[in-house]
Amino acid sequence: MHNFRAAGALQEKSQKQGTAFVPPKYSYRGFNVLPEDPRAPKDDEFYGFVFQDSDFAKWIEAVGYSLAPHPDPELEKTADEAIDIVCRAQAQNGYLDTYYIINGMDQVFTNLRDHHELYCLGHLIEGAIAYYEGTGKDKLLRAAMRFADYVAERFGSQEGKIHGYPGHEIAEMALLRLSEVTGREKYAELAEYFIDQRGQAPLYFDIEHPTPKGEEYKVDYYHQAHIPVRQQHEAVGHAVRAMYLYSGMADLARRTGEDALLDACRSLWKSTVREKMYITGGVGATHMGEAFSFPFDLPNDTAYAETCASIGLVFFARRMLQIEAKREYADVMELALYNGILSGIALDGKSFFYVNPLEVLPEACHKDERKMHVKPVRQKWFGCACCPPNLARLVASIGSYAFTENDDSLFVHLYMGAELSKNGRRIRIESGLPENGKVKISISSGERKEAAEGIKLALRIPSWCEEKYTITIDGKSLSRCEENGGEPCLSNGKEIVGTVKDGYLYVTVPDEETLIGMEFDMKPKLIAADRRVTEDLGRAAIVRGPIVYCAEEADNGKGLGELMLDSEAPIGEVICDDFGRKTIALDLLGWRCSPKEGNEYISLLYRTWQGRNMEELRIRLIPYRLWANRGEGEMRVYLNVK
Amino acid sequence: MHNFRAAGALQEKSQKQGTAFVPPKYSYRGFNVLPEDPRAPKDDEFYGFVFQDSDFAKWIEAVGYSLAPHPDPELEKTADEAIDIVCRAQAQNGYLDTYYIINGMDQVFTNLRDHHELYCLGHLIEGAIAYYEGTGKDKLLRAAMRFADYVAERFGSQEGKIHGYPGHEIAEMALLRLSEVTGREKYAELAEYFIDQRGQAPLYFDIEHPTPKGEEYKVDYYHQAHIPVRQQHEAVGHAVRAMYLYSGMADLARRTGEDALLDACRSLWKSTVREKMYITGGVGATHMGEAFSFPFDLPNDTAYAETCASIGLVFFARRMLQIEAKREYADVMELALYNGILSGIALDGKSFFYVNPLEVLPEACHKDERKMHVKPVRQKWFGCACCPPNLARLVASIGSYAFTENDDSLFVHLYMGAELSKNGRRIRIESGLPENGKVKISISSGERKEAAEGIKLALRIPSWCEEKYTITIDGKSLSRCEENGGEPCLSNGKEIVGTVKDGYLYVTVPDEETLIGMEFDMKPKLIAADRRVTEDLGRAAIVRGPIVYCAEEADNGKGLGELMLDSEAPIGEVICDDFGRKTIALDLLGWRCSPKEGNEYISLLYRTWQGRNMEELRIRLIPYRLWANRGEGEMRVYLNVK
Repeated sequence: MHNFRAAGALQEKSQKQGTAFVPPKYSYRGFNVLPEDPRAPKDDEFYGFVFQDSDFAKWIEAVGYSLAPHPDPELEKTADEAIDIVCRAQAQNGYLDTYYIINGMDQVFTNLRDHHELYCLGHLIEGAIAYYEGTGKDKLLRAAMRFADYVAERFGSQEGKIHGYPGHEIAEMALLRLSEVTGREKYAELAEYFIDQRGQAPLYFDIEHPTPKGEEYKVDYYHQAHIPVRQQHEAVGHAVRAMYLYSGMADLARRTGEDALLDACRSLWKSTVREKMYITGGVGATHMGEAFSFPFDLPNDTAYAETCASIGLVFFARRMLQIEAKREYADVMELALYNGILSGIALDGKSFFYVNPLEVLPEACHKDERKMHVKPVRQKWFGCACCPPNLARLVASIGSYAFTENDDSLFVHLYMGAELSKNGRRIRIESGLPENGKVKISISSGERKEAAEGIKLALRIPSWCEEKYTITIDGKSLSRCEENGGEPCLSNGKEIVGTVKDGYLYVTVPDEETLIGMEFDMKPKLIAADRRVTEDLGRAAIVRGPIVYCAEEADNGKGLGELMLDSEAPIGEVICDDFGRKTIALDLLGWRCSPKEGNEYISLLYRTWQGRNMEELRIRLIPYRLWANRGEGEMRVYLNVK
Repeated sequence: MHNFRAAGALQEKSQKQGTAFVPPKYSYRGFNVLPEDPRAPKDDEFYGFVFQDSDFAKWIEAVGYSLAPHPDPELEKTADEAIDIVCRAQAQNGYLDTYYIINGMDQVFTNLRDHHELYCLGHLIEGAIAYYEGTGKDKLLRAAMRFADYVAERFGSQEGKIHGYPGHEIAEMALLRLSEVTGREKYAELAEYFIDQRGQAPLYFDIEHPTPKGEEYKVDYYHQAHIPVRQQHEAVGHAVRAMYLYSGMADLARRTGEDALLDACRSLWKSTVREKMYITGGVGATHMGEAFSFPFDLPNDTAYAETCASIGLVFFARRMLQIEAKREYADVMELALYNGILSGIALDGKSFFYVNPLEVLPEACHKDERKMHVKPVRQKWFGCACCPPNLARLVASIGSYAFTENDDSLFVHLYMGAELSKNGRRIRIESGLPENGKVKISISSGERKEAAEGIKLALRIPSWCEEKYTITIDGKSLSRCEENGGEPCLSNGKEIVGTVKDGYLYVTVPDEETLIGMEFDMKPKLIAADRRVTEDLGRAAIVRGPIVYCAEEADNGKGLGELMLDSEAPIGEVICDDFGRKTIALDLLGWRCSPKEGNEYISLLYRTWQGRNMEELRIRLIPYRLWANRGEGEMRVYLNVK
């Protein structure tokens, strides 16, 4: 088991835009209640959802990540002022959730299940740490610590303390991070208490909210509080909560090295990605409770696949990667990021999807109440505005997901333009992804040449290239060979220069300037879902590298369900100018199928089967993350295959 | 426009079981709250739903229909006692809905939208008439008239009266029938008022229940009260309510001969059966409001297709037939009866479906909240027990749907074993339907030979035979020819003996004993839905005559979505003994398809497309109405076609 740190602090000028991944433009100032909202806040009234405080916390977190590489005095001033306001609201005892501060402190912690005080604590901690790390200012961090201190006083196994835990998880991972940042064990112990206590009998939420017989399981299941976490092997309940809990569990397992907890994390990971994940990286298939459905139940048109849940999946994946560098975690992280997460925001950064379906018929969204959670175009804002600031904090800290490090190695999980340093060496990454599979990594000695040391790079070889890749070091091609131990490795013809393990190429870079070139095969291909996903039987999605494609009405007309792919047809890559920058679209020949008109059976709606009309046509596909940027229309990821 | 009476009174020994259609055995005594129901009724408390009185009314209606052909003193005694109890509850002013009688008469008619007083009135009238016609006893009928008199006093356009109408329709058709039975115009006028007033601005329900802005339309739409009925052209809202309203509108149009109202009925019919009807005769595609969805939105797995709604469709169809003898109405009536209605009851008559889906994966019904309205096996009882007694009253009065008459003609819409009389002639029908397409109609002079006259029969030629039929009169085959006017007709080689119009063969039977033989082609065939039904693209259902078939797990194993039909394969008819009597099942060769295993893409859940494994196998289909009589398992009506 490796032990890693996330590479947030490691980036010198992290997230410098390289040749490829350009984070969507996103205005932090946009977070206002829409002018037409009639519920204007009043001075002495709490406004919004009980967890509304977390909006500030997510925003300040994104600001913190952003200020490190992109200093912006005006933004920092706004943030400082907001922090002043928030800190002034803190109670004497350290408590800091304005819902109860305004409505009555005598009721604090009486509704852990539904009132998100501990969720707000978690976000406050995450925000405070990011702002501290981004600016060096610790005012908010100290406020968050005081709130955490107060919670630590009130919760625990001792008599007289509350034996509860968060209704909506996040405090677990936040407290573990706070413990790492501050060096204070007590925060880790509190996180551990929340994790260990969850699901222990008698179930806390059933005591707090006496629940009708037969309903308890359902309610506790929704909160991942039905059984102790080490016995949980299936991802269940509210998907965002689940992802946040599992992330916290992984953090704790990394800290303690406990096998039972790590085993639970591995099982929950497998359950999530091998049975309950859309090909877009979306998780949480049903809007009923914004939750996971049963294994292999992945309907395309009623999908929920909340943007926040995919973000949570990235949190979980990064934490599993920090424990064990296996590429499946990074593959999933990349898949979710480039598809089901970025689909959550419009190209202009001004509108958002909460729900990320894989099949949309706009008429159904407007008229069928079963699909009213599915929006055919992005919305300017939401009553529950969790996704937009969650996206902001993820994108602004993307470097800590792309790269992690341990004492001797720098791990490159996602290839994106960046400048990093490690052991005094300067590492510059230029990446063509996701447009092309070319990556260039230049390692130099940096400014302080005397301090430069050899470093080890661990470079992910994405599974999507199906082992079709080339690697050069200083222009010399490496070839694959088998080491004595049978471990695959790469040779420059003279000597072994790298080994491959669990999908990572480990290469030691000597104390010289070095240039590593990589190219991963990105040939588009058809993908079939497991046969147990009944929705997708006989259908395929088309992918190119980690990018999932979809068909839109804008390119293919109405009636996308009538399209049929020819699995033998070559798939052409074409440049499409529809999205403000050159985008690779895919073209292939296929058919539009419709039933030949037979005799009427009972009503004009039904006719005897006379075969199909097959009209040959060119089908165009665009990256899924870009759908619904050209107005309202049908969209489908899975198409029928002949 | 023809004017017909329904042939309820016309049957001498109506519904004698002929060679074919055997109504499922059904115990009228079975209507008890299940023993495990914890909500035991108390003497002085109203128990159950606000419309619980209607359960009695539907039951007494079924009893009335049943007693005419099947005298049963014990059942009649039980019914008389129940009637005594109900009549004792009637208020001095005639009001008779026990919810308000128990809870406070000062509140009557203050919540027309949600409290079903006028619905209970309607059912009471229907029940009272049936019992009166079945037994000659008028105690309940007089009670129903007193209640109707009271309602007539309270409702109407005059100042001081209530300008409302039923939240759940049925009183309209019931009052029109009461007017026919009693000869009292006032009941017809009250029905007309309810129909005319519905949807007039200002909308009554919005006044009664001040509704949040923007919500009114949705609420009124649900009640078919969004616009005046003559402007309604799309079937919308709660499907049972819609069917009952349209039935009442048709009754009124028949009475008044008003074109505008009839046009609305025709439009609503077309909207229902040409855009919103499942191939099983199910209507109301969504459980959200038990309602119609938008045109061509007919999902199979989340279907609602309530048994009662299909029963309502039969009501509407019979009434349209009474206005104009066009076979589409009878075709639909037959389709609904033999498929989506009879599927509502188990073979042993002891359990019921409220919802009649066209595709079932039991795991989804148990675990996916989006499909929890879909039950994979029939239920013993329901909290809202509308369907079982509705089924009972339909089945017990089926003769009035199979046959209607006007002054000179007897119309045979549905072929089922029966003995009827008309103009002193005795007509005996033996029918092989739905097992085979052979029908024998013997016309004799009956017992009172002196009174026998020539009669005209109008015999439906079902559209499902695609004009493949043979007809003999006294053994001589008739051949088709064109009369001078171009109207198709049938000749015995010497003379024209019948004409065909709108799908009915009109034949005049002279004053002699006559034997008419008919045979309709019932070759099984594949049916495709309209291409706008996206769910069914590339799929077909298999039918045989009016019988829709389905595949079950019991015959075909799990994974019915993997089955693929060969549209060229011959379809064999085989006798199946699984259902207590010989049933025609269908066998045809097809394939079980599954994706060939390609390379993993990101997760084991996704693999590169390598084509399909096609395992040839025999696919067995059984009549849809019989599904779920062999335990819990998957079921599908539509299967993929190669």
